Amino acid sequence: MGKTRLEAFSDGVIAIIITIMVLELKVPHGEDARVLLPMIPIFLGYIFSFIMVGIYWNNHHHLFHMVQRINGSVLWANLHLLFWLSLIPVTTGWMQESHFSPLSVALYGVVLLMAGIAWPIMMHILIKIHGYESPLAIAMGKDRKGKLSVTLYAAAIPLAFVSRWIAIGLYIAVAVIWFIPDQRVEKSLPQD
Amino acid sequence: MGKTRLEAFSDGVIAIIITIMVLELKVPHGEDARVLLPMIPIFLGYIFSFIMVGIYWNNHHHLFHMVQRINGSVLWANLHLLFWLSLIPVTTGWMQESHFSPLSVALYGVVLLMAGIAWPIMMHILIKIHGYESPLAIAMGKDRKGKLSVTLYAAAIPLAFVSRWIAIGLYIAVAVIWFIPDQRVEKSLPQD
Amino acid sequence: MGKTRLEAFSDGVIAIIITIMVLELKVPHGEDARVLLPMIPIFLGYIFSFIMVGIYWNNHHHLFHMVQRINGSVLWANLHLLFWLSLIPVTTGWMQESHFSPLSVALYGVVLLMAGIAWPIMMHILIKIHGYESPLAIAMGKDRKGKLSVTLYAAAIPLAFVSRWIAIGLYIAVAVIWFIPDQRVEKSLPQD
Amino acid sequence: MGKTRLEAFSDGVIAIIITIMVLELKVPHGEDARVLLPMIPIFLGYIFSFIMVGIYWNNHHHLFHMVQRINGSVLWANLHLLFWLSLIPVTTGWMQESHFSPLSVALYGVVLLMAGIAWPIMMHILIKIHGYESPLAIAMGKDRKGKLSVTLYAAAIPLAFVSRWIAIGLYIAVAVIWFIPDQRVEKSLPQD
Repeated sequence: MGKTRLEAFSDGVIAIIITIMVLELKVPHGEDARVLLPMIPIFLGYIFSFIMVGIYWNNHHHLFHMVQRINGSVLWANLHLLFWLSLIPVTTGWMQESHFSPLSVALYGVVLLMAGIAWPIMMHILIKIHGYESPLAIAMGKDRKGKLSVTLYAAAIPLAFVSRWIAIGLYIAVAVIWFIPDQRVEKSLPQD
Repeated sequence: MGKTRLEAFSDGVIAIIITIMVLELKVPHGEDARVLLPMIPIFLGYIFSFIMVGIYWNNHHHLFHMVQRINGSVLWANLHLLFWLSLIPVTTGWMQESHFSPLSVALYGVVLLMAGIAWPIMMHILIKIHGYESPLAIAMGKDRKGKLSVTLYAAAIPLAFVSRWIAIGLYIAVAVIWFIPDQRVEKSLPQD
Repeated sequence: MGKTRLEAFSDGVIAIIITIMVLELKVPHGEDARVLLPMIPIFLGYIFSFIMVGIYWNNHHHLFHMVQRINGSVLWANLHLLFWLSLIPVTTGWMQESHFSPLSVALYGVVLLMAGIAWPIMMHILIKIHGYESPLAIAMGKDRKGKLSVTLYAAAIPLAFVSRWIAIGLYIAVAVIWFIPDQRVEKSLPQD
Repeated sequence: MGKTRLEAFSDGVIAIIITIMVLELKVPHGEDARVLLPMIPIFLGYIFSFIMVGIYWNNHHHLFHMVQRINGSVLWANLHLLFWLSLIPVTTGWMQESHFSPLSVALYGVVLLMAGIAWPIMMHILIKIHGYESPLAIAMGKDRKGKLSVTLYAAAIPLAFVSRWIAIGLYIAVAVIWFIPDQRVEKSLPQD
């Protein structure tokens, strides 16, 4: 099976997820600067989730660049990842609406954690198909970044009830780790 | 006529359908766990419809992988299928909103039934184009799963008024049948 | 310039237009059949506009199948067509909301008329690029269907104020004319 | 890395942005012409933003037509551009809602300015990858249009508080400059 449609479908879903969040930036009622103030946390939440989804898209792009064949399990592993990503807009929205209440921050972390778990599941299925000596498997290596992310998310969820800012700080830390696109893949790739 | 645009357009529509449903998961008003409780049935409905649409996308992907040429009738048969799939979000939404009232569960079944009928219509048009001895026709075989699904949906619709749980159980049964991607196609395919 | 992205972008916009309309089918409040009754005209409006947009997508698919090269003017002529198509959901919505008031029916006709005018504009630019002796130009011929559609729409707009049903009847007549995909193109095409 | 997915993803996001704006054209309540009057400025705002986003799509299409390879920085530079474009619907909506209040007109200018800055950032990264003697670099030349646009937007933002019409006039002026698709690229391209 070719990977073209999986890529196209994922691009479509991720493009919609990233733009659904902008719908949460509701048109303010009023004409002056005061109506913009309450939009600042909403705007910051939008920027952060935009970057998070952008990171997933970039890594998806890098990963599938090395993929040569897929099967039905990959389709479902990918849908599983997209499922958790699709919950980012609503959980972002609740954080924004509830002024970053501890529970909303924790729930956002749960969604990030589940997406963070869905990612290596898909990667391992792909490595199994391509072989443990394949360029893809070698490029993926020990997936230290992935393991660190999942650990930080798992820590952030209970910590949100101690201080939401610690949790948010950990989410930002994970984003920073991933912001630099996955050098492992890019380096091992021939230019095409 | 090439199948690329039909695939791309279907991917687009299905990607939007699957993400429109997430809009029904409205951002809760409030800060604590109580506001999440009423969202549980909505969330379960979302998971189920996500899987249903995911199954259609996967089967669409598998089917068109074997397709070599299309014509105007295939375009319309595909639009007909997409039409019924496009009604899944609103009927899911009504089930969620009406706390799974019998009528809403039955109506959801009608939409699934019509999509279940639209699928073999498209398949038969494709088989006609490719010939009854084509790999596609052989791979599709007697379409036992398709016929069973339509029968179960047709049974579930009146049964929803006896007990909504029987109907929902039947919908879940069909989903389970299809969850395993169509092995018929995958087995008959050379790796590409 | 290649036509791939123009096709992909148009597929995306048309996929969104066709599914935005489904958002107008608002989730009903209530549990029984009475809440479904007011949805019947909305549902009929949805079916009709779905078919109209489907016709444009099919014809777009057929037309661009023959296109070999494009330029900046084609990009804008295509955006111009997409602009008018993008107004179909809101004008459909107003027809539904105002119970098919004469003005709403006329306005819907204006949008169909403008899309009907945007189509031959794009076609003529494409014919100019490909030459008047090109397969595309020959396949398009005298565009009798296009001219008839524009005439019927232009007649329907004032007639909506005499009787909305005459106007709606004319819209349906045009849809029927186009429902059969453009045989001119399909016949002149070699199978690929 | 191939550019196909970057193009497809951008097409998806831009298609959604351009059609999200149509959701701001809310279905009017009422049956006669009076309910349409307040929609005229909203409609004009829609047309203008549709053209602005259309210009970006066209130029994106032209630019990437010449691109031969990309890297992780290009992915992020492109997401950065899409981020600012994604704010066009909500800022357009606020202009419409606030009857073009000076602050809303200025904020719209800020978004256009930031998108206008994101564009040359991406272009310079691309030129760096392709080399300063590459056809892409030569075709882009001194980017006079880009520099003029940024200057006009930067002037329009404070001028919006003097007179919103001056600012709107400047936005329209920039649109007119860009409306003609980027001749530099088109001329230097061989037909394909």
